[in-house]
Amino acid sequence: MGSHKRKYAIGVDIGGTKILACVLDKHFDILSEVKIKTKPDKGERFFIKTLTDAIRQALRDAKITAKEVVGIGMGCPGFIDPDTGVVAGSPNIHFLKHYPLAKRVSKALGIPVTLGNDVQTGLYGEHQFGAAKGFDNVVGIFMGTGIGGALILNGKPYRGTSGSAGEVGHVQLDPMGPACGCGQTGCLEAYAGRLAISAEAAVAVARQQAPHLAKKSGTDIRAIKSGALARAIRAGDRAIEDILRAKAKRVGTVMANLVNILNPDMIVLGGGVVEAMPSLIAKRAEKTMRTIALPSSSKHVKVAIAKLGDHSIVMGAAKRAEDVFGEKRRGDPKNG
Amino acid sequence: MGSHKRKYAIGVDIGGTKILACVLDKHFDILSEVKIKTKPDKGERFFIKTLTDAIRQALRDAKITAKEVVGIGMGCPGFIDPDTGVVAGSPNIHFLKHYPLAKRVSKALGIPVTLGNDVQTGLYGEHQFGAAKGFDNVVGIFMGTGIGGALILNGKPYRGTSGSAGEVGHVQLDPMGPACGCGQTGCLEAYAGRLAISAEAAVAVARQQAPHLAKKSGTDIRAIKSGALARAIRAGDRAIEDILRAKAKRVGTVMANLVNILNPDMIVLGGGVVEAMPSLIAKRAEKTMRTIALPSSSKHVKVAIAKLGDHSIVMGAAKRAEDVFGEKRRGDPKNG
Repeated sequence: MGSHKRKYAIGVDIGGTKILACVLDKHFDILSEVKIKTKPDKGERFFIKTLTDAIRQALRDAKITAKEVVGIGMGCPGFIDPDTGVVAGSPNIHFLKHYPLAKRVSKALGIPVTLGNDVQTGLYGEHQFGAAKGFDNVVGIFMGTGIGGALILNGKPYRGTSGSAGEVGHVQLDPMGPACGCGQTGCLEAYAGRLAISAEAAVAVARQQAPHLAKKSGTDIRAIKSGALARAIRAGDRAIEDILRAKAKRVGTVMANLVNILNPDMIVLGGGVVEAMPSLIAKRAEKTMRTIALPSSSKHVKVAIAKLGDHSIVMGAAKRAEDVFGEKRRGDPKNG
Repeated sequence: MGSHKRKYAIGVDIGGTKILACVLDKHFDILSEVKIKTKPDKGERFFIKTLTDAIRQALRDAKITAKEVVGIGMGCPGFIDPDTGVVAGSPNIHFLKHYPLAKRVSKALGIPVTLGNDVQTGLYGEHQFGAAKGFDNVVGIFMGTGIGGALILNGKPYRGTSGSAGEVGHVQLDPMGPACGCGQTGCLEAYAGRLAISAEAAVAVARQQAPHLAKKSGTDIRAIKSGALARAIRAGDRAIEDILRAKAKRVGTVMANLVNILNPDMIVLGGGVVEAMPSLIAKRAEKTMRTIALPSSSKHVKVAIAKLGDHSIVMGAAKRAEDVFGEKRRGDPKNG
């Protein structure tokens, strides 16, 4: 196969708003990086062209040919079968429905492709190269617009029976709680996802309790992003800080339940909300977790902030491409 | 080693009130069974003598010599290191504290001994021989005086970082809920363990809403056992039935969270409360779980009642002895 010459891997982060494609060398250092808007409303053909163009551009930027690449790893939101590379459904890219995305990209570029769920791929990146490196039993909690999660158990990604394990955002905290996007009520995401946080912040603005946020973002929850919340807190909006503390307590409660169930050695917190206010959220969540969880389990767990930021998915995906298509672990596609 | 001649295994269930010792043949059929009271108040020497006497009696009853036994497997409540056979602590047998139980029994009898947590061992029995046979990702929930739990993931017992994974009884449902034995409030066990159920049933008796239970058990919660609750329901005590339904809903809520987190293919329900009222509890709990859990995960999970009853720990323990000390899997003590 000549794969001994294939010393580069490509990692791709496919999001609903942007695609990030990188070429990585054998040390998983990033050699090139292409970012492009996804524009899912333009349909499937445009999407595939955008995606493959971004990868080709990343190759050109790194001065690498397709023949030197061991494989492409991609992470994508939604329900994905990592063994077949088929997307069962994706929340923001509507045409990805029972769609053989890995096969399409592989055919277009002549490079083997492996595909995984974005959150699971990102946690794999953190486990291989970031905050969870060296830990065996890892829970990843990613607070963005929603709240995603993933698990590493006994040193390997754990996906469950049908690939959808780790949905910590839909742990129910209170059946009388707010409506969640999943159709249920009182899920962690319905309390502490960015949309829920922004909604509560908008109420504080409307009540004239958050003058700094009022000036910058107003009461439109779409305008109240994580960075705006962090800036308002730094500028002195105590009402916003109180909201974030309360949300972090919710996250900590779910963390305690996860500690009691899984007895992990590491909990990694990431996502836009955490990145904007890392210590505020992590400290309060950790404190709550340690108050509630059984000491026999909680004394063995550490809490850390994700380290790789925007590169966690790209790096996890590239590592998985190496796992699946590289020489050493060929034929073990479930690892990664 | 001559282990090809060793075709019998011994399984022992060490409980706070009774010890059950069985000799099993190579098909894991039970050849003999000795049940004896534990009497932990009589101290450590008496305990070890009782335990080893029970095992010797089981050997005599089966007409087997120690030389024909591949090993002894034991299950015991508390925090246990299955690799060393040391009990860190056990709730009902106070002198088992940093106690090398496996080594003591092995020395006394001249037979190798492996020791595990009772709930984890019982679920392993159900996985190898009972309701969970053939399933890969199994959650076990055992409703007794408290609520215990254990996990099988990717076909193997999952114990977590320090051996205490699976504590589903201490998932917090409501921080404002009733006090739990663990020191927290609102844990599943504080709502739906047998003590909590009996307490609520006693209130119904005191309110004269449960005439049948009043006649048989009165208002002493120690007298209100699972069998008494089941008989009262069969006799027509609607108030007691309503209590059990509400408790099963609590269990179903936690089951839903476990389904979202672990994406299992099987949930096994067992323990005295479930055995006394299997369909009442399992049906309501399953219905609640299916209402709350994400359909993408819940459609892959089955719910079943534990099949092995009082023999689940004995059979799981004997199988683990075979795993650890038998010829085929020698040197892989973590499996089982």
